[in-house]
Amino acid sequence: MKQSMDFNNALNIVNQSIQKIHFNNKPASLFAPIHYVLSLGGKKIRPALVLMSYSLYKDDYAQTIPAAMGVEIFHNFTLLHDDLMDKADIRRGQPSVHIKWNENAAILSGDAMLIEAYKQIGSINPNYLSKCLEVFSKFATEICCGQQLDMEFETSLDISIDEYLEMIKLKTAVLLGGALELGAILADAPEKDRRLLYDFGTNIGMAFQLRDDILDVYGTHETFGKRIGGDILSNKKTFLLLTALKDERERDTLISWINKKEFDENQKIAEVTAIYNRTQAKEKAENVLNDFYEKALNILNEVDLPSERKSNLLKFAKLLKHREV
Amino acid sequence: MKQSMDFNNALNIVNQSIQKIHFNNKPASLFAPIHYVLSLGGKKIRPALVLMSYSLYKDDYAQTIPAAMGVEIFHNFTLLHDDLMDKADIRRGQPSVHIKWNENAAILSGDAMLIEAYKQIGSINPNYLSKCLEVFSKFATEICCGQQLDMEFETSLDISIDEYLEMIKLKTAVLLGGALELGAILADAPEKDRRLLYDFGTNIGMAFQLRDDILDVYGTHETFGKRIGGDILSNKKTFLLLTALKDERERDTLISWINKKEFDENQKIAEVTAIYNRTQAKEKAENVLNDFYEKALNILNEVDLPSERKSNLLKFAKLLKHREV
Repeated sequence: MKQSMDFNNALNIVNQSIQKIHFNNKPASLFAPIHYVLSLGGKKIRPALVLMSYSLYKDDYAQTIPAAMGVEIFHNFTLLHDDLMDKADIRRGQPSVHIKWNENAAILSGDAMLIEAYKQIGSINPNYLSKCLEVFSKFATEICCGQQLDMEFETSLDISIDEYLEMIKLKTAVLLGGALELGAILADAPEKDRRLLYDFGTNIGMAFQLRDDILDVYGTHETFGKRIGGDILSNKKTFLLLTALKDERERDTLISWINKKEFDENQKIAEVTAIYNRTQAKEKAENVLNDFYEKALNILNEVDLPSERKSNLLKFAKLLKHREV
Repeated sequence: MKQSMDFNNALNIVNQSIQKIHFNNKPASLFAPIHYVLSLGGKKIRPALVLMSYSLYKDDYAQTIPAAMGVEIFHNFTLLHDDLMDKADIRRGQPSVHIKWNENAAILSGDAMLIEAYKQIGSINPNYLSKCLEVFSKFATEICCGQQLDMEFETSLDISIDEYLEMIKLKTAVLLGGALELGAILADAPEKDRRLLYDFGTNIGMAFQLRDDILDVYGTHETFGKRIGGDILSNKKTFLLLTALKDERERDTLISWINKKEFDENQKIAEVTAIYNRTQAKEKAENVLNDFYEKALNILNEVDLPSERKSNLLKFAKLLKHREV
């Protein structure tokens, strides 16, 4: 048995496989937005996790490709519809589908994209199909639930940290867990390992999202790729914002910035960042992030495999924890 | 072997089964629109066809329920998203989801509904899952293609009858064919019968949609349930409109009605109906409808079963052909 697969190797295979996906292309107008979204890039972490998880047990990764593609197409479908719902006009530096085309194109091509994701899942080896489909639909529903909560948070200031963590678990973390679980199912991993890998992925996913919240304020545009302070401008209920709101000395000032209709964008970003600094919001986020990270490592430790076999997943977790992009 | 199932029997089973569907109901706000749409009624022809098709071969219909529910939930999902895209504010006499809630609720609950449809399909007996999933995803994509063409027709006056028939085939007819095919797969019907039943359903579906076009103008509100002339007011490219547009003596008058921004609604309905009468648009639609109907009957005749076994499907086809509702 060879070494397990590292992230870069998995990423190469994922990128090659995406190129080979064939859609029914008539009418072209329905499929153009799907091709567009998939061409915008992205980290491709989720499909890579399907392959990496599988490679803990088996080498013949070819049969993971439908599951990996299903996960990646599904993820991009959620971005397409979320951008429409959130009125986010830019995705990966390019106009979102509802801007480049129109809202109806975003709705309908998104629907077709979700169906394409299921078509990929449908081409999984029939011996594993029933179980994989169950796992896939479970996290798909959870991600809708997460988006619903995220939208409901927009109109509220009284969201507890626990409610926030539940939301990001649903919206972001379960997909990383689910990707690992799909790989484990396809590799005939023991039931116990399958659950551990899911939990490992979910905890890494929590750390991943908290890192995202931090980078949006404290990252640098060159590496992060998005405008720094974007979450602040859109009053997004991040871990930082909710933490700062709990500080009685800063709450009123912060709320007044949230409610301002007219403001200088750079000033708002600077003032709100200053509040985050004074309330140690970043440090608090890092502490929680580290807790999830440590928990993930402990769970990975329990997976019944030699540690050298798990080293690539461990390396990948470290990479995500310290990421600047 | 007992007699095959008639439509009313199938409908009763479908209605009972819909009551028993259990959704993950948290957050309630995500699932409320799904419950709402499913509670609005509808003819439930498609799930009934799954059962009726199965009952041509086998009696233990219980294992068709997931496929039947998947088809019905999917159909209602398409109505939910189509109403949003088409800005159709009323569905079955009640406010559409995007009106009763809002556009984002319609998008996201629609997505969750599509996933629920796939969850139903996922609970099909694993021996049949791969094939059923393939059939399901195939017609799901085709229906998106049909909606795409229908939307593109809105901005054009030069649509041929063939293009129109292709659109309604994709948007409406393939789902009736697909429902019958799913029942046939689950019943281990011979490959040849499976194809014949699909073709029978697709041809019946064509007749069904042409009847819809006719009823929208020539039906009565009491039985049809929608406002008579709704298609005329929204300039919907129906068989009648496209047929009348081909008459050189009427084309300019008809186009001027289509382009009018301000008009008396009853007058527009009366004038356009008069054009349809003068161009024999209804008779032409009925001729084409009858051709599809006759074709369907010929195909059903080829299905390798005793004719008494097929009598309930035949009765059902007649019912659809002459329907006033």
